[in-house]
Amino acid sequence: MDTVQKVFEKITAGDIYARHNGIEIEEIKPGYAKTRMTVRENHLNAVNITHGAAVFGLADLAFAAAANSYGQVAVALNMNISYVQATTTGAVLTATATEDKLTNRTGLYRIVVEDETGDLVAVAEGLVFRKSEPVR
Amino acid sequence: MDTVQKVFEKITAGDIYARHNGIEIEEIKPGYAKTRMTVRENHLNAVNITHGAAVFGLADLAFAAAANSYGQVAVALNMNISYVQATTTGAVLTATATEDKLTNRTGLYRIVVEDETGDLVAVAEGLVFRKSEPVR
Amino acid sequence: MDTVQKVFEKITAGDIYARHNGIEIEEIKPGYAKTRMTVRENHLNAVNITHGAAVFGLADLAFAAAANSYGQVAVALNMNISYVQATTTGAVLTATATEDKLTNRTGLYRIVVEDETGDLVAVAEGLVFRKSEPVR
Amino acid sequence: MDTVQKVFEKITAGDIYARHNGIEIEEIKPGYAKTRMTVRENHLNAVNITHGAAVFGLADLAFAAAANSYGQVAVALNMNISYVQATTTGAVLTATATEDKLTNRTGLYRIVVEDETGDLVAVAEGLVFRKSEPVR
Repeated sequence: MDTVQKVFEKITAGDIYARHNGIEIEEIKPGYAKTRMTVRENHLNAVNITHGAAVFGLADLAFAAAANSYGQVAVALNMNISYVQATTTGAVLTATATEDKLTNRTGLYRIVVEDETGDLVAVAEGLVFRKSEPVR
Repeated sequence: MDTVQKVFEKITAGDIYARHNGIEIEEIKPGYAKTRMTVRENHLNAVNITHGAAVFGLADLAFAAAANSYGQVAVALNMNISYVQATTTGAVLTATATEDKLTNRTGLYRIVVEDETGDLVAVAEGLVFRKSEPVR
Repeated sequence: MDTVQKVFEKITAGDIYARHNGIEIEEIKPGYAKTRMTVRENHLNAVNITHGAAVFGLADLAFAAAANSYGQVAVALNMNISYVQATTTGAVLTATATEDKLTNRTGLYRIVVEDETGDLVAVAEGLVFRKSEPVR
Repeated sequence: MDTVQKVFEKITAGDIYARHNGIEIEEIKPGYAKTRMTVRENHLNAVNITHGAAVFGLADLAFAAAANSYGQVAVALNMNISYVQATTTGAVLTATATEDKLTNRTGLYRIVVEDETGDLVAVAEGLVFRKSEPVR
């Protein structure tokens, strides 16, 4: 089994937060990942729009999958997210993480969240520290 | 019923994401809020530590409660989070949001996440846009 | 004279910080701007690499020019910058600001800083509040 | 000569950008630094207020001084700044950097920028990677 596939299976099986919140990895390649979430009632905030933390969770899983895609454990140091459009139940959101830069010790990713019409929902930038240990 | 109490009840009753993820408001005052989450299995990521998105969710609720505490609707524009320590199941995390600056149109908040021993887990900075409409 | 040209001339003539630090607008279009800086001695930090604040200044001028390009005054609320590569004297750096989102009240921009070989030096994300007054 | 004093002298003598922009270290202790800048014409933007990049530069020097105060070279990975109040010529700005967290490999700092009356001008959060080499 290749490394990317192993990382995909590890996260899909083991990320309980993502499963609990209905977030799935749709695609993963070295330095790249795409996640998906259909907005349900349990993603809403008190004014019935998709919770900022739910949008963040979707972006965060794309970020984590992309950053760990090489099979070397990457831990998040920083994430910066800007919200540009509200959504609500029924929206199908995707987050796409692409790599700005990879070094031995760090990785920097841009994550774009869109709805099913391609409208921008949020953008984020995430930074990881890459540990010496492999993803097991 | 005073404004802060009304906001507390509105969020506590209506924030389904927070309830689904075990996050509660512990205290709210004008420009200030504290939230709490005991880390459970459904907060974990694939390496069995508290998910960055779960920590963010805890911080985000404190931020939202503080920013909406005046009874004027505040929507998040940006949030920046830095992670400093990993935790796992059984940890009792609190997030405290304090106000750096309030203007007619914006509010800026610092959020500090700590574990039950007072060790720092994450720090965040959040910016809201304040709408003209009241929290209903 | 059209609006973009007026903004270009206003900034070029009036931004004393930019002139003092050798930063110029190379191109400006609605929602877009590109700036340039040749790294000199006065851009260096104590270890003889280009100062983070000099790189920020280059990115910031592209951000400001793009955000004000419509002729409506835009003031910065937040800027987040990540550094990915060191440079030193002689490097010719450019910053390109593109628009992620524009609303009546806010504008969100991504700024990419590169050296003369096209290598990435830094990425930034900037948010403005758009005032009701025109650029004069 | 002790380590903190050595770092102070190294930055004061060698940071040409800071000198060119009138920024000085006022105080430095392990994990802490304070810088000062009197706003002059060359700090202004095209609307005659202190340039965001000048405010950033002041904050950045406090951040760099605090992060390098242990005598181990620290390089900036990320900086997030939020602006809360405009100033202009004659204002005396100070930036105070305090340490949120220090690990073997990273350091996280909060930087608060104030004017001479103690009013908040900007807040920033900066993250460094700590290299193995000493400040020479």
